[in-house]
Amino acid sequence: MGPAGADEGVWTFDSPPAKALQSGYGFTPSAEWLDALRLSAVRLGGGSGSFVSANGLVLSNHHVAMGCLHALSTAPDDLVRNGFYARTRAEERPCPGLDLRRLESTEDVTGKVHAAVKSNDDALATAQRNAAIAALENECGEKTGLRCEMVTLYRGAAYHLYRYRIWNDIRLVFAPEARLGAFGGDPDNFVFPRFNLDFSLLRVYEKGEAIKPAHFLKWAKTGVKDGDLVFAAGHPGSTDRLVTVAQLAYDRDIRYPLMLASANRARKVLQEYSARSPESARRAAEILVSTENWLKATSGAYKALREPELMAAKTDEEARLRKSFVPVAGQTDPWVKIEMATGKRARDAKSHWAVGYGFQTLFGAGGQIVELANETALAAADRLPEYRASRVPLIVHRLSADRPYYKDLEIARLTGIWQEAIDVLGKDDPFVVRVLGNRTPLAAATAAVEGSQLDQVAERRKLIDGGQAAVMASTDPLIVLARDVYPLRRQLEKRYEVEVETPTLQAGDELEKIRFGLYGTDAYPDATFSLRLSFGKVSGYDADGMLMPYQTNYAGLYARNFAFAGKPPFDLPARWLEKQRDLDLATPLNFVSTLDIIGGNSGSPVVDRNGELVGLIFDGNLEGLGGRYAYTDRKARAISVDGRAIVEALTKVYGAIPLAAEFSGR
Amino acid sequence: MGPAGADEGVWTFDSPPAKALQSGYGFTPSAEWLDALRLSAVRLGGGSGSFVSANGLVLSNHHVAMGCLHALSTAPDDLVRNGFYARTRAEERPCPGLDLRRLESTEDVTGKVHAAVKSNDDALATAQRNAAIAALENECGEKTGLRCEMVTLYRGAAYHLYRYRIWNDIRLVFAPEARLGAFGGDPDNFVFPRFNLDFSLLRVYEKGEAIKPAHFLKWAKTGVKDGDLVFAAGHPGSTDRLVTVAQLAYDRDIRYPLMLASANRARKVLQEYSARSPESARRAAEILVSTENWLKATSGAYKALREPELMAAKTDEEARLRKSFVPVAGQTDPWVKIEMATGKRARDAKSHWAVGYGFQTLFGAGGQIVELANETALAAADRLPEYRASRVPLIVHRLSADRPYYKDLEIARLTGIWQEAIDVLGKDDPFVVRVLGNRTPLAAATAAVEGSQLDQVAERRKLIDGGQAAVMASTDPLIVLARDVYPLRRQLEKRYEVEVETPTLQAGDELEKIRFGLYGTDAYPDATFSLRLSFGKVSGYDADGMLMPYQTNYAGLYARNFAFAGKPPFDLPARWLEKQRDLDLATPLNFVSTLDIIGGNSGSPVVDRNGELVGLIFDGNLEGLGGRYAYTDRKARAISVDGRAIVEALTKVYGAIPLAAEFSGR
Repeated sequence: MGPAGADEGVWTFDSPPAKALQSGYGFTPSAEWLDALRLSAVRLGGGSGSFVSANGLVLSNHHVAMGCLHALSTAPDDLVRNGFYARTRAEERPCPGLDLRRLESTEDVTGKVHAAVKSNDDALATAQRNAAIAALENECGEKTGLRCEMVTLYRGAAYHLYRYRIWNDIRLVFAPEARLGAFGGDPDNFVFPRFNLDFSLLRVYEKGEAIKPAHFLKWAKTGVKDGDLVFAAGHPGSTDRLVTVAQLAYDRDIRYPLMLASANRARKVLQEYSARSPESARRAAEILVSTENWLKATSGAYKALREPELMAAKTDEEARLRKSFVPVAGQTDPWVKIEMATGKRARDAKSHWAVGYGFQTLFGAGGQIVELANETALAAADRLPEYRASRVPLIVHRLSADRPYYKDLEIARLTGIWQEAIDVLGKDDPFVVRVLGNRTPLAAATAAVEGSQLDQVAERRKLIDGGQAAVMASTDPLIVLARDVYPLRRQLEKRYEVEVETPTLQAGDELEKIRFGLYGTDAYPDATFSLRLSFGKVSGYDADGMLMPYQTNYAGLYARNFAFAGKPPFDLPARWLEKQRDLDLATPLNFVSTLDIIGGNSGSPVVDRNGELVGLIFDGNLEGLGGRYAYTDRKARAISVDGRAIVEALTKVYGAIPLAAEFSGR
Repeated sequence: MGPAGADEGVWTFDSPPAKALQSGYGFTPSAEWLDALRLSAVRLGGGSGSFVSANGLVLSNHHVAMGCLHALSTAPDDLVRNGFYARTRAEERPCPGLDLRRLESTEDVTGKVHAAVKSNDDALATAQRNAAIAALENECGEKTGLRCEMVTLYRGAAYHLYRYRIWNDIRLVFAPEARLGAFGGDPDNFVFPRFNLDFSLLRVYEKGEAIKPAHFLKWAKTGVKDGDLVFAAGHPGSTDRLVTVAQLAYDRDIRYPLMLASANRARKVLQEYSARSPESARRAAEILVSTENWLKATSGAYKALREPELMAAKTDEEARLRKSFVPVAGQTDPWVKIEMATGKRARDAKSHWAVGYGFQTLFGAGGQIVELANETALAAADRLPEYRASRVPLIVHRLSADRPYYKDLEIARLTGIWQEAIDVLGKDDPFVVRVLGNRTPLAAATAAVEGSQLDQVAERRKLIDGGQAAVMASTDPLIVLARDVYPLRRQLEKRYEVEVETPTLQAGDELEKIRFGLYGTDAYPDATFSLRLSFGKVSGYDADGMLMPYQTNYAGLYARNFAFAGKPPFDLPARWLEKQRDLDLATPLNFVSTLDIIGGNSGSPVVDRNGELVGLIFDGNLEGLGGRYAYTDRKARAISVDGRAIVEALTKVYGAIPLAAEFSGR
């Protein structure tokens, strides 16, 4: 990748895009400005959010709070469908398994990690790296009392310790109906013009009291207008802008086809399950929506990956970089190193994909319990990195959440996952043989799920607390099965670490040195689900002849509802139809900007030059789905909920006057 | 072209798409149904319209009435900008130069024309055809008292006499503000979702009284819904679906580049002129809007023409047809014949384009006066076809219209046109030398226009009435110049007729015989600006990921106004902002259908199975601009104003209650 273009980048807060901001916008953020934004931004489960009041009120997306809403819902009291509003603090409801973190400080420990990894043997180097990272994290945690996590930046060229303050008592305060949170459903997802009230409000508690954060974002009542400079502070999950052409080709030819076929299967399974009854549809709603969302996003990235222009541009960039590579005696070309490692990755791709417990399934919980017990018994050097000491508390917190599992849904999903394993790996594959024996996927899944008590939180807690002994003694069929699968999965994970990750990190370090030499250090690292700063401007665009405005409004919400004659997913709840005439229809609802974002940025606060809150990110447009590989500001846009829409809705539709006052600081 | 696909075709009323309607929709229009629609449909100047009341009320587009609005406007009383509403019959204002026609009957005279054209010599054959057509038209006119015009169908395989009833006293009754008639201006032109109230109401008078047409369309109060079968009766101007690959290549490589470059120049000239003052902008508004419209439509057709897929499909079709060609002894391959004729067309393309008087200019009026005097003095066989006796009344009617010419605008336009001639033909070209002498385009245009009195209708009438003698004696500089240009233009026109048109018509006749042999006669001819029937269904579509509804509504109009913060061309007149709360925002405004339409269809009534009026065509979408060459129902859509929007606006915004009652039959 060449130097960053205008408005490009997911920058770390300790290395903000000062040059680009000054030259593009005549703006230089002060250290205080940056600190205030950083300390107001939070990570919330798998998404982002921000403190917006002195009483610990947190703003995020409806879809980030979706797991909580789903966990708190029952058939007669469906918070997903109906929304939720706690009129008093006492009515605010704890979100099971949700956690929130704030980045307190960071420390560059690159030298220490690199110094520790001495061996030329990949297996030894892997162990050395794991041990060094764990030691640094643990030492930092003991010293600061914070949760310290290592973040690998610039594909192995830098290692930073990120120190977090963590809260685990997060309570739901307000959520609109799902139809408002995701108006237009899957058809409108990633589409603009858009009309989504994709926000929720939560509150952070500590020892039973709402916290009083020192920093929170003040709402900018005047909002944004066309051309305004804006910033987002959030947690972009993962980009691949620095990867080599060999890695891109692997994604295009192997990884994406595998992932997309799998997600298409999963969607079909969930759709068929949902069609059984309205209650089935309710049970599957959260996972179906997130599967559809993932599919649409990933299909867009895959499409971008297959554009010959993208690959040609990446090939050109790589050729330019390779020209400036002068090998030290005996040094292997780092691109060749990565290509070799990627070849090994390709060899194991199918097994690595199919061997496991199933993402976000009950069996997945069982697998985590088995792995947690076994891995934490190992020395730091030998553990799978996902079970490093710093990561254990979050795993335990999530496994201990009292959330509903629906056995009929679990059986349907596991049946689909195991049928996929047969189709991908063949019926004689050791994994398939272990999970199925000579049964059909449906018979095996039914037996394992029906006989399991893992859906009870007390049972999960008992096993977690009992450690290796309890796990070994358990006769719960999902635990028994997970014990069988664990060695297979561990072997594949370790092989990946040693044969793919370690040489790729080493080569990445070399590549970055070449890149820094060519373009200087005014660059940003690929996204790593850690806190980043994006900047850009509010801006409409020309979508192949259709002029897209920089914002939408409530009139547009009703227009789309009317245009489809109120048919789902364009229906509106009765109170929204009743309150139409009370609303100021010109109120801005969503706006678009050139902010560089990606999945994980959902819920990121969007602030103006003054550091005041103007809205929150909830999506990107279809034209931006190639952002995983390359940024463009021509038609790619981030989509935000406008803060004015939130205040208008709270006030005029929901009668949540005190909450509107707390949010808006009035 | 192969057989027509679903919903495809611009069918003549004497050969309706009975098979496709029965198989696709289980509907067979009766003769009465067809007659009632045909006799309600009218051609109005360059567009289409329909009778909608027993008192001669005619519905058409705002943009079809634009010429009238512009002609009736003055700086202090700008009907284009402010709209118009005649509260009484006495206030209804005659539209200068506007004419309206209704198709009374048709007659197939193919045999007579073919029998008359006997010669193998192209020049002689041309004269024979011209004479035969003129004779048939004249004879028909004398016999029926109607205006009879020959229509060449199936590129020369059929000749039909079309018998029209003509009215010349057409009065303006109602027009909304131009901002409503063309909301979103050029950016939104051809775009969907769309929010245009592109309608006007006029009334037909005869001997000072409103006529009482025997047939008119009754308004269908319930409107359309998704999937409804609809029909349009209108005057599609010109399609090229039957042309050969050689002709397509000529369009793509020569004709379109020439036309588009010219229109881009013209737009620039008009924009610069408009920027001089608000009054300049008002003066140029009509021609600028129509230039922009033409440019956008033609750019879309040109884009379609350059798609390799289109040319490949056309090449395949042609290869299929050529396989079934069995030459009679000595017969030249008709495709080769057309290719040779097209080669000659290419030779003269630049001169044929640049040599003339300027479309819709004051000089153009002078040119027409000179040609009218000279051509009508010739025998039918020798005249340029555009001056056939049947066509003279319309030319005289338009030249005699008391419409404003603005000399500063005429100078600016003529300067641009002559500069283009220098650039295209070179400064030594005979045409350039004749119009410029040794002056600059600006000096020559200024002298000619300033010294002319042709802007006075009395002066034009005097010359028309005085015939050849008056034209020869005139010292009006534009007439003097036109007399110089006329021989050059005539020579090019005649050469085109003899060397291109005649062999192409002959070959076309042969090609159609081959095509009928292969596909049968259940086909429709290319559009010829004569009355046609289209059918299709109301249907939204998927525009590359964005789900387009089948209709829009008033909420969407306000949404787009708000989204662009009311900036032009998304501003709304004050009364529209004031009346927002009075309107039912769910009222359908525009709807899309698979109707096969093209320029000239503007204003076509859209009716349902009952033959009742549901709306009127005003545009197609961007995806349909390739319709000149091939129809598709995947994303191409015709866009109509919904009749319910008209009634709602007349009633709630304009207070035009009696007019709403007349329109809606209540």
